[in-house]
Amino acid sequence: MTHTLIYPAHAVHNAAGHLQIDGCDVIDLVAEHGTPLMIYEEKTLRDQCRKFMQAFRDRTDDFEVVYASKAFCTLAVCRLVEQEGLSIDVSSGGEYHTALRAGFPTERMFYHGNNKTRWELEYALANGVGYVVVDSFSELDTLERMVADRGGVQKILLRITPGIEAHTHSYIQTGQLDSKFGFGLTEGHAAEAIRRGLEAPHLELAGLHAHIGSQIFELEGFRKAISILVDLVKEAHEAFGFECRYLNIGGGLGIRYTEEDTPVTIEEYVEGKVSGVRQEMARVGLPVPRVLVEPGRSIVAKAGVTAYTVGTIKEIPGIRTYVSVDGGMSDNLRPMLYDARYEAMIANRADAPADTVVTVAGKHCESGDVLVKNARIARPELGDILVMPATGAYCFGMASNYNGNPRPAVVMVKDGAVRTIVERETYDDLIAKQRPFQG
Amino acid sequence: MTHTLIYPAHAVHNAAGHLQIDGCDVIDLVAEHGTPLMIYEEKTLRDQCRKFMQAFRDRTDDFEVVYASKAFCTLAVCRLVEQEGLSIDVSSGGEYHTALRAGFPTERMFYHGNNKTRWELEYALANGVGYVVVDSFSELDTLERMVADRGGVQKILLRITPGIEAHTHSYIQTGQLDSKFGFGLTEGHAAEAIRRGLEAPHLELAGLHAHIGSQIFELEGFRKAISILVDLVKEAHEAFGFECRYLNIGGGLGIRYTEEDTPVTIEEYVEGKVSGVRQEMARVGLPVPRVLVEPGRSIVAKAGVTAYTVGTIKEIPGIRTYVSVDGGMSDNLRPMLYDARYEAMIANRADAPADTVVTVAGKHCESGDVLVKNARIARPELGDILVMPATGAYCFGMASNYNGNPRPAVVMVKDGAVRTIVERETYDDLIAKQRPFQG
Repeated sequence: MTHTLIYPAHAVHNAAGHLQIDGCDVIDLVAEHGTPLMIYEEKTLRDQCRKFMQAFRDRTDDFEVVYASKAFCTLAVCRLVEQEGLSIDVSSGGEYHTALRAGFPTERMFYHGNNKTRWELEYALANGVGYVVVDSFSELDTLERMVADRGGVQKILLRITPGIEAHTHSYIQTGQLDSKFGFGLTEGHAAEAIRRGLEAPHLELAGLHAHIGSQIFELEGFRKAISILVDLVKEAHEAFGFECRYLNIGGGLGIRYTEEDTPVTIEEYVEGKVSGVRQEMARVGLPVPRVLVEPGRSIVAKAGVTAYTVGTIKEIPGIRTYVSVDGGMSDNLRPMLYDARYEAMIANRADAPADTVVTVAGKHCESGDVLVKNARIARPELGDILVMPATGAYCFGMASNYNGNPRPAVVMVKDGAVRTIVERETYDDLIAKQRPFQG
Repeated sequence: MTHTLIYPAHAVHNAAGHLQIDGCDVIDLVAEHGTPLMIYEEKTLRDQCRKFMQAFRDRTDDFEVVYASKAFCTLAVCRLVEQEGLSIDVSSGGEYHTALRAGFPTERMFYHGNNKTRWELEYALANGVGYVVVDSFSELDTLERMVADRGGVQKILLRITPGIEAHTHSYIQTGQLDSKFGFGLTEGHAAEAIRRGLEAPHLELAGLHAHIGSQIFELEGFRKAISILVDLVKEAHEAFGFECRYLNIGGGLGIRYTEEDTPVTIEEYVEGKVSGVRQEMARVGLPVPRVLVEPGRSIVAKAGVTAYTVGTIKEIPGIRTYVSVDGGMSDNLRPMLYDARYEAMIANRADAPADTVVTVAGKHCESGDVLVKNARIARPELGDILVMPATGAYCFGMASNYNGNPRPAVVMVKDGAVRTIVERETYDDLIAKQRPFQG
């Protein structure tokens, strides 16, 4: 196995020369389930959860690991991360609904979003939600009124925008001042939000939240964010007697999409956050709050791979060879949207030397529908099964029916057994919500 | 009405000061159907079809206007363009299925795609399809074998890549040499494809196809493509006696997304194609073939608008004001994917001066989820209805459930009457294909 770092932990080349994931031959899987097929390894997924939990347990009793479900929000994964003791972050009524249907305890749910609709808030309040992460003054007012109408008290966090530009793609950089998210520090907005949160009779301000961005490879930005949050905690403590019991420092841990990527480890990431909070709180002389992090990508990305069937191979002499597969931008938009880089392999000749450079294209009617530029793979042939690793996060969740393509099936494998967690869409599913045009 | 050029033809400001589309008050529509809501004006859609048909009829008897269904592929629109006498271009089994279910005559269907799967071809052959637009040598071989097995003869066109770089976003530039699409002219590939197409006993080579890209504002690229295709026709005529009866010059006509855009008219576009083909065929002394074009965007884009509800308004002093709406990148990905520009208006105060510059953001957990940068609108308030025009093409078709957001409802209006053509997805729809995780 040449690519162990970016494949699920139990991916091997079996005796048939096929890629095998925790006892399941990928070629057998696609023979039964078709392509494109997303394959998740349960052990890797659980193991990533456990690494986070253990790294915290080794350092503190007071923590929560909150799965950012937007990375891959399905009944199966919600249930699985719940079993591993994680909490969950939902960013819409739909994610809330999915977690609810998966049996997730509402008290371990954190409800995010820069623009929660009134209906979304009503739905969550009616069924219960642990924490609403309030993003704006208007939401603070709306939520107070809604809870007052219902009776009771709703626990909240406040989302703070610390004014930090993380080193990542601008689309997923979220902590900078010029942001649609949260309360900024300029003009005293964040302090004012804390004051109002403390005063609101039907809201209980438990703490603060900040998220500086995604797919970050350096710890320094997180440390800066903690320092800024703690300064704010101190200011609000002195001004309004604010006691910050929860400090949620968001997600952002980068993962390895290619062999060249060098993210920090979960251990280093958790150490940075826990010791950062401790040191900063010691600096201001206030008690250490519960530390929360929100990993999404780092829980699910490595656990998932996508298998495609190779179709048209077009050699353009002196330019490049296009290898087209039976999926593309409708099941993985990340290369087109973020210039994300991936690797690939021919799963039915897993031991063959990766001696051919090709461009892996999708089947959609756009030149931009390219999954991997200059992939190094075994010489491809019509009918080969091409696998792209590290597609477990933000691929299925952004999938569309573009160009009339049904969304793929998703299976989970463990110890040679396979279970379907999402059925493949059919052509009839594409038109299920459509009505015929009469007249 | 300040923006008539980019809104549906029968959009007005009514006595209530609301945006009204062909007799339907947009504020009433969203009160009944909710937001985000896509609203299509039937008359504009039909009128765009008729402009194409009339522009051709004024010039020739031998033509086909082929709707590129990828722009917005629904039962209703397939039916409607069929009624207007257009043919249809499908780019997948799913689009083929939708057109079939809409009752589209199979003989007026053109089946495209750089990587049609074997299953997709089988499905189309079993139910009949007018023309397969063959994209590669392997498809030529596969199709010949499949038709031989079934018996009969299948009409085909060959997709040629003329080696032209159209002036448009690289993602939707499709005629250049370095392309996953079609047969290039270098190394004699295109001529060789014609030879093989003529020799294949179960294929009938009716003609050629080329598509240089989308959202093109200048006619020169099309003219060059015609000239190159005609040179190829002449070469193949002399070498193999090829008679080109169909010349399909693709789509590509740009539309007006903002007031600043200045596309050529349908009349100018059709004139350029018809006269271009005539002149070029006269140059080589061969009979003029049927001329086909494949408009998609220019049929549906202007007919459609999207209505959102304004939620969080965040003013960042000295930087910008973010106005968040209840949709975003899950219902319109074009701003994020192509840097596409749109305009916007407050539909419940349609007569108010557009004196406020804001950034319209979506509700998704990404900084990249911005629909319009620096939109000039009336001063927005919580609960306003914000409408974005010219969203009729490549918005619903690329819609996803990202961040757990159900896809919007789509209605069609005419003479004050409204009909739902796509029902809004529910939270239960989000998990309809998912299976719970046992154990």
